[in-house]
Amino acid sequence: MAGDKQSRPKARTVRGFRDRAAGELAAERAMLDTIRRTFEAYGFDALETPFLEYTDALGKFLPDVDRPNAGVFSFRDDDEQWVSLRYDLTAPLARYVAENQQFLPRPFRRYQIGTVFRNDKPGPGRFREFIQCDADTVGSASPAADAEMIMLFADTLEGLGLKRGEYVIKLNSRKLLDGVLEAAGLPISGSDENLARRAAVLRALDKCDRIGVDGVRQLLGKGRKDESGDFTKGVELTSAQTDRILKLIVLDTDSNDPFQQFKELEKFPQSGVTNQLFVDGLDELGRILRPMVAWRYKDCIALDTGIIRGLDYYTGSVFEAQLTFPVQNEKGQDVVFGSVGGGGRYDDLVARFTGQKTPAVGFSIGVSRLLTALKMRKATVAETAPLVVVTVFDKNDAAPSFAMVQELRNAKVRAEPYVGTGKLGDQFKYADKRGAALVIVEGPDEQSQGKVKIKDLALGAELSKSAETRADWVGSRAAEVLVNRSDLAIEVRKLLARGR
Amino acid sequence: MAGDKQSRPKARTVRGFRDRAAGELAAERAMLDTIRRTFEAYGFDALETPFLEYTDALGKFLPDVDRPNAGVFSFRDDDEQWVSLRYDLTAPLARYVAENQQFLPRPFRRYQIGTVFRNDKPGPGRFREFIQCDADTVGSASPAADAEMIMLFADTLEGLGLKRGEYVIKLNSRKLLDGVLEAAGLPISGSDENLARRAAVLRALDKCDRIGVDGVRQLLGKGRKDESGDFTKGVELTSAQTDRILKLIVLDTDSNDPFQQFKELEKFPQSGVTNQLFVDGLDELGRILRPMVAWRYKDCIALDTGIIRGLDYYTGSVFEAQLTFPVQNEKGQDVVFGSVGGGGRYDDLVARFTGQKTPAVGFSIGVSRLLTALKMRKATVAETAPLVVVTVFDKNDAAPSFAMVQELRNAKVRAEPYVGTGKLGDQFKYADKRGAALVIVEGPDEQSQGKVKIKDLALGAELSKSAETRADWVGSRAAEVLVNRSDLAIEVRKLLARGR
Repeated sequence: MAGDKQSRPKARTVRGFRDRAAGELAAERAMLDTIRRTFEAYGFDALETPFLEYTDALGKFLPDVDRPNAGVFSFRDDDEQWVSLRYDLTAPLARYVAENQQFLPRPFRRYQIGTVFRNDKPGPGRFREFIQCDADTVGSASPAADAEMIMLFADTLEGLGLKRGEYVIKLNSRKLLDGVLEAAGLPISGSDENLARRAAVLRALDKCDRIGVDGVRQLLGKGRKDESGDFTKGVELTSAQTDRILKLIVLDTDSNDPFQQFKELEKFPQSGVTNQLFVDGLDELGRILRPMVAWRYKDCIALDTGIIRGLDYYTGSVFEAQLTFPVQNEKGQDVVFGSVGGGGRYDDLVARFTGQKTPAVGFSIGVSRLLTALKMRKATVAETAPLVVVTVFDKNDAAPSFAMVQELRNAKVRAEPYVGTGKLGDQFKYADKRGAALVIVEGPDEQSQGKVKIKDLALGAELSKSAETRADWVGSRAAEVLVNRSDLAIEVRKLLARGR
Repeated sequence: MAGDKQSRPKARTVRGFRDRAAGELAAERAMLDTIRRTFEAYGFDALETPFLEYTDALGKFLPDVDRPNAGVFSFRDDDEQWVSLRYDLTAPLARYVAENQQFLPRPFRRYQIGTVFRNDKPGPGRFREFIQCDADTVGSASPAADAEMIMLFADTLEGLGLKRGEYVIKLNSRKLLDGVLEAAGLPISGSDENLARRAAVLRALDKCDRIGVDGVRQLLGKGRKDESGDFTKGVELTSAQTDRILKLIVLDTDSNDPFQQFKELEKFPQSGVTNQLFVDGLDELGRILRPMVAWRYKDCIALDTGIIRGLDYYTGSVFEAQLTFPVQNEKGQDVVFGSVGGGGRYDDLVARFTGQKTPAVGFSIGVSRLLTALKMRKATVAETAPLVVVTVFDKNDAAPSFAMVQELRNAKVRAEPYVGTGKLGDQFKYADKRGAALVIVEGPDEQSQGKVKIKDLALGAELSKSAETRADWVGSRAAEVLVNRSDLAIEVRKLLARGR
């Protein structure tokens, strides 16, 4: 079966995919368990939709080409229908609600944690498979639903060990921006030319973090030359239009108190932004903020009229959780960690199926980014329990070793017998490579005395490194101890406790 | 965005896929957590390989057709290479070990729990996506590794709440069968005709559970007519050959003690089966059984020379965990529940990549079958915590309701505010549909007295059902209580404790 070399496949992962080992998985699991507990405490129920969906149900267009769409992994099922690997958890939720709405409570509250797939060009740190973690309330237009989402997001981050002040949840409403754009002569509907300009404006505003207000001002006007000398043509708004828009984006207040910031926004109608969109946006923001009064973390949210979160999809509130502590970027500069997820209100997704507007609000956590952040903060870091390897002296009779392992496990110690075929030296090498804390040896000498030997691998390694301080080390604890066979579990537990 | 009816997609899952809701997921998660803990206690480390693999790495042949293989979901990546959704967790493990072997301890011990995909025709209870749960030791030919797997399987089942005697792990070696077939003139290698006959013999033997020994005897001889009258042509062995094979399959012993059963097998060489394969198989089985002496569950394993587990893949030990308690089949007959998973030794999978034999042993648990079994036994059944819905009286000011929810959550009660837009009646209907245990109401009347009302939904439903016993019920506990606002959390906890 081994076959000749020609016919042998090369062992490699698909580009943009990777294997993940125990250490990363343990930390991730601990994090996801906390998230799940928080979501469930808030009354959200778990839901798992399939990994595959019909491509049309995901809202992807089906042209007459072999591959229906960039960004999504798609193929034809046996019955010739196009199916796709889900690229997020929101589109399947909309499908689920549309399919089951007569059975679901209204509002319907669910969370889902799952792998999603993006058929993008992979790059360093950019994978084509990653985990998302979403909570959504579908079927309520009430701003209380938005408020609850923001509180859930904050409680989740604090549940994970982030401290007050290490994060901020920035809140905005797309209706404010849409209202200001309308007041500036760029209404939400109209000619294709108008819509294209609106989209260009939103793209420019979305870059504010990177290129600053002046950069955005250039992009809204004649255009902007970047550091490399490349020129991006601008939207060619008048300076009056640009001023009006930037007045919203760069809100003129130094206060971090969202209620004070809100008061600043309330002045906009006086300066001419009186359309219904803006007034509705303002009213909704106020009603999102009000329940926060009763809430212990109200100092962790801020209004930020610069939050856009992409071009389509959101129809009302938008919010984003940002971590505020500094980290070093690849150039060694201190920058803030930034976004670990966000969400908002989207009222049109279920309507794709049903034709009826269904108000919904939710958010999505970027699991791997958040995990990276937590590791930097040493907030929640789970480790696998220390391992004890029990060597096997006579490979024709593993029973005594199995018995020791059993005793250790009964004492809640993570233990395994050596089940390979190597000699004692190989068994030690194995234990070392496994990162085992202790190794147990019961050879004929020990057996005849009713003893077992416990070797402390970590200590042994340290001893051999720093010979000059050997006496100190040996004085405090030995790298090898001989204990009574009957005391094995007790002695192992003692040693493990000492190693912590 | 709602669009006209023509352009609207239908909301439906892909055939053979399904959505899974909170109740099923909670039970499954509890089960998988226990399995994971047991696997980790045994020293197995978590590994997660990607959902997609190169098709050739999965060991699937690539013909010049649009779809390279039945049974597997496959498509071409952007670079024209064929990729597939994994159909099990063993093929990706072999790829992983081949790719990383210079960094891995030897033996390498990992477990993986994950969704796998089969591109089969879906049917009732047959899905194209399901979860498997595998543990494997790669790089050891020692029978101690096989023994440990069987012990791990049994400890896992008992950890899940199955009792001694409710399950049995049946053990066999493919080498015994291969040896007997060789002695019967059907060696493991040889002409295509011989290999085809061998395969037909194995297929017939694998049906022993369903068609009985006489049925198998017919299939090994001239052929068999089934209940529907269809005739299956037989392998046309001589009756001497058939006898020889069936003597192994139906071992002549009444003992359930595997050591006694083993003694019976030791007589085979005397009756002419003296080839190396058989002798090796016997030796290995003996060395798998020996460490079990030290093991607390040795009465839960049995030798069963009829266990085949499919046609290829396994090269040594094979074992299968069977649940022995009776369940009713679709015809209302009592049958034993049967297999919930199994495994064995496979020494050739890594060699597909490396050309070097790499001994390995492992097993796979069928998660959904085991979960079904556990529910029948009421062994481990996790339920979501009871939910409390806090109604909102003034929808313009949800703050008081949010404050109550916060207090309840701080007291570890699962609680949510109503965040929809319905009136109080709708809010009760919502709570009912959510399966909430209690509903909290703080209207103006209650507020002026410093009180809140707690409604017991389950009790209310019972009261309205059985009006004649109303007095009894009301005497023991009321469906609605008025408590001090300041005692909310305490009173809710009391009521929830009473409802258990």
